[in-house]
Amino acid sequence: MRRMNFSAYIPTKLVFGAGELSRLAECSLPGKKALVVISAGTSMRKYGYLDRLCGLLKKNGVEPVVFDKILANPVKTHVMEGAAVCRDNGCDFVVGLGGGSSIDSAKSIAVMAVNDGDYWDYVSGGTGKGMPVRKALPIVAIPTTAGTGTEMDPWTVITNEDTKEKIGFGCDLTFPTLSIVDPELMLSIPPKFTAYQGFDAFFHAAEGYIASIASPVSDLYALEAVRLLYKYLPVAVKNGSDLKARSKVAWASTLAGMVESTSSCTSEHSMEHAMSAYYPQLPHGAGLIAISEAYFTAFKNDRMKRYMKMYEIMTEKKSARPSDFVDALVFMQKECGVDNIKLSDYGIGPDDFPRFADNAVNTMGGLFGYDPRQLTNAEIIDIYSKSYK
Amino acid sequence: MRRMNFSAYIPTKLVFGAGELSRLAECSLPGKKALVVISAGTSMRKYGYLDRLCGLLKKNGVEPVVFDKILANPVKTHVMEGAAVCRDNGCDFVVGLGGGSSIDSAKSIAVMAVNDGDYWDYVSGGTGKGMPVRKALPIVAIPTTAGTGTEMDPWTVITNEDTKEKIGFGCDLTFPTLSIVDPELMLSIPPKFTAYQGFDAFFHAAEGYIASIASPVSDLYALEAVRLLYKYLPVAVKNGSDLKARSKVAWASTLAGMVESTSSCTSEHSMEHAMSAYYPQLPHGAGLIAISEAYFTAFKNDRMKRYMKMYEIMTEKKSARPSDFVDALVFMQKECGVDNIKLSDYGIGPDDFPRFADNAVNTMGGLFGYDPRQLTNAEIIDIYSKSYK
Repeated sequence: MRRMNFSAYIPTKLVFGAGELSRLAECSLPGKKALVVISAGTSMRKYGYLDRLCGLLKKNGVEPVVFDKILANPVKTHVMEGAAVCRDNGCDFVVGLGGGSSIDSAKSIAVMAVNDGDYWDYVSGGTGKGMPVRKALPIVAIPTTAGTGTEMDPWTVITNEDTKEKIGFGCDLTFPTLSIVDPELMLSIPPKFTAYQGFDAFFHAAEGYIASIASPVSDLYALEAVRLLYKYLPVAVKNGSDLKARSKVAWASTLAGMVESTSSCTSEHSMEHAMSAYYPQLPHGAGLIAISEAYFTAFKNDRMKRYMKMYEIMTEKKSARPSDFVDALVFMQKECGVDNIKLSDYGIGPDDFPRFADNAVNTMGGLFGYDPRQLTNAEIIDIYSKSYK
Repeated sequence: MRRMNFSAYIPTKLVFGAGELSRLAECSLPGKKALVVISAGTSMRKYGYLDRLCGLLKKNGVEPVVFDKILANPVKTHVMEGAAVCRDNGCDFVVGLGGGSSIDSAKSIAVMAVNDGDYWDYVSGGTGKGMPVRKALPIVAIPTTAGTGTEMDPWTVITNEDTKEKIGFGCDLTFPTLSIVDPELMLSIPPKFTAYQGFDAFFHAAEGYIASIASPVSDLYALEAVRLLYKYLPVAVKNGSDLKARSKVAWASTLAGMVESTSSCTSEHSMEHAMSAYYPQLPHGAGLIAISEAYFTAFKNDRMKRYMKMYEIMTEKKSARPSDFVDALVFMQKECGVDNIKLSDYGIGPDDFPRFADNAVNTMGGLFGYDPRQLTNAEIIDIYSKSYK
């Protein structure tokens, strides 16, 4: 019998559905003053999301304080700066509005707003000191992308600019208290990013399904996420205004976040984090897509039944061999127009592979322990090499 | 598109698996003194569960105070009495060890230990006053049966002896903080009760799946619970020492509790509660089984696709018509040796049906609102009549 001993814990209150953002005006919130964390980009203002959010908070008797410096690959400097703004303004809780970068930063700011020292004192992995986090402000997550799943997991991925470490971190206190997932906020995402983000979600689910700590509860979430993304991600990429497809993709991404809370990503995520730590212009999802065929091919004989099960759930066809899953994955990438990502376009070259491999193992080595089997350094470099176009 | 707007909230930390009870000696617990609530029966002592639990608590630095008066259909008097014991002893949290009756009582005691007045002041439904519950002691649930799912939902069902009302009640504060589901504690359940309890879980899932508020998340839990119970409940009934079957049934029951937290039971549960409010000797599961064929037949044309889907998940065969599900349900009851429950054995007669129908609507009328369509009083009586043997 495969692992029937497991634990599960997701204390977040999830509100899901088109139009549900408006609930923010009436629902119970954990305080009267909120730090609203958004990216340094223009979209939260351009699409009116920030104004709408602040209006709803005010209607609920909550004063918003906006912190708008977060980068696409969020950095420790802004976590520390946001925490200072939070303290200086006496905020009771932190709202992350936007993609994973804003919500992850909100989580890390919620920790540093009430803890002394440097953020890296609390991070475990790499040069982080791994001190225990005993308190944090409450967190409210409002994703405007469908990819990270951070709204239903405790994880926050922040880059230390000095050490070039991009590390995932989290504890019970970094689960959002409340997450509102409103697919209407995702209608404006361009096709390419819809695909990058959707594949990020897909890999959270697929990695979590082949991980050594997969459990009966994470399997439920993972297979449903994989099924929905195979069916609806190409639709959402081709027609971004299809609210049904956006809703299905958003729900799949949230489910994949639940996989991250109950199972784990595997080393594909460590390997990608190493890439985007050195090349911050590389979108996380694009990096994952680029290495995915070689990555999943590497384990196809180690989780044969699970590869075949994913293929069957995705295509509703019988699987004859584990590589069917890899073929379906490549087909799905073609359908989404992201089957030809060139790492060289981002400046990445073969010389990078050994340092990527070292960085992946040194900063997020823990995830290699959840792989179906232990990869050698040569195999890791080989996956990067095969992914280089 | 079927209901894509929904919310989900299950803040309980679940620890699942054979042998996991021993974790109690080391895990973080919400205080230093615990009221341990068990039934008035002998089994918790006979099988050594109580001693083991108290030993593990002590090892973890927690002093246990035992309250051992809970009846199979738990009553308000014992909730009030347990709350007084809890207060008098200065307990920090409440542990429910046993079947649903003990855990439900632990939840209600956790409420009344820190709130004034009578328990029925807080119950909503029937003659309850529905006052809001703003605080409760933390609750730890340790089920020794697989049926109620109470370890993963906020519900507690208590009977008011004076008014003959058996009412479900719950709020965010009555979710257990921690639930340890250890199938080893279920090995000693006799076949008949294994079946009664397993069918209770089955109906939580099946009702939650046909309920008008079923959602994408409750559907995931419900279909998996229904699938596992169809496959493994007859095995667990026939060979109670089969730990794999016990584990699968326990997990299905926990999943069905998650259905109760994310969807709802329908009126089958109201109708059964009316029966066992008047006839406390009738086990809840036996009452449900007795009315289930007539009950599910009544809605077969209102949820055709969902009936067929349940049949297909259960049997791995294509369904031709919704009544296939009812046939599979009856087959499963035969396999478990519970297809011939005689209500007359419990003293129930046709004269009871009108007062059952009134009681069901008056005390738990809310669940009728989640039915696939509104039942008339005549239809309710007809379901009771068809179930009478």
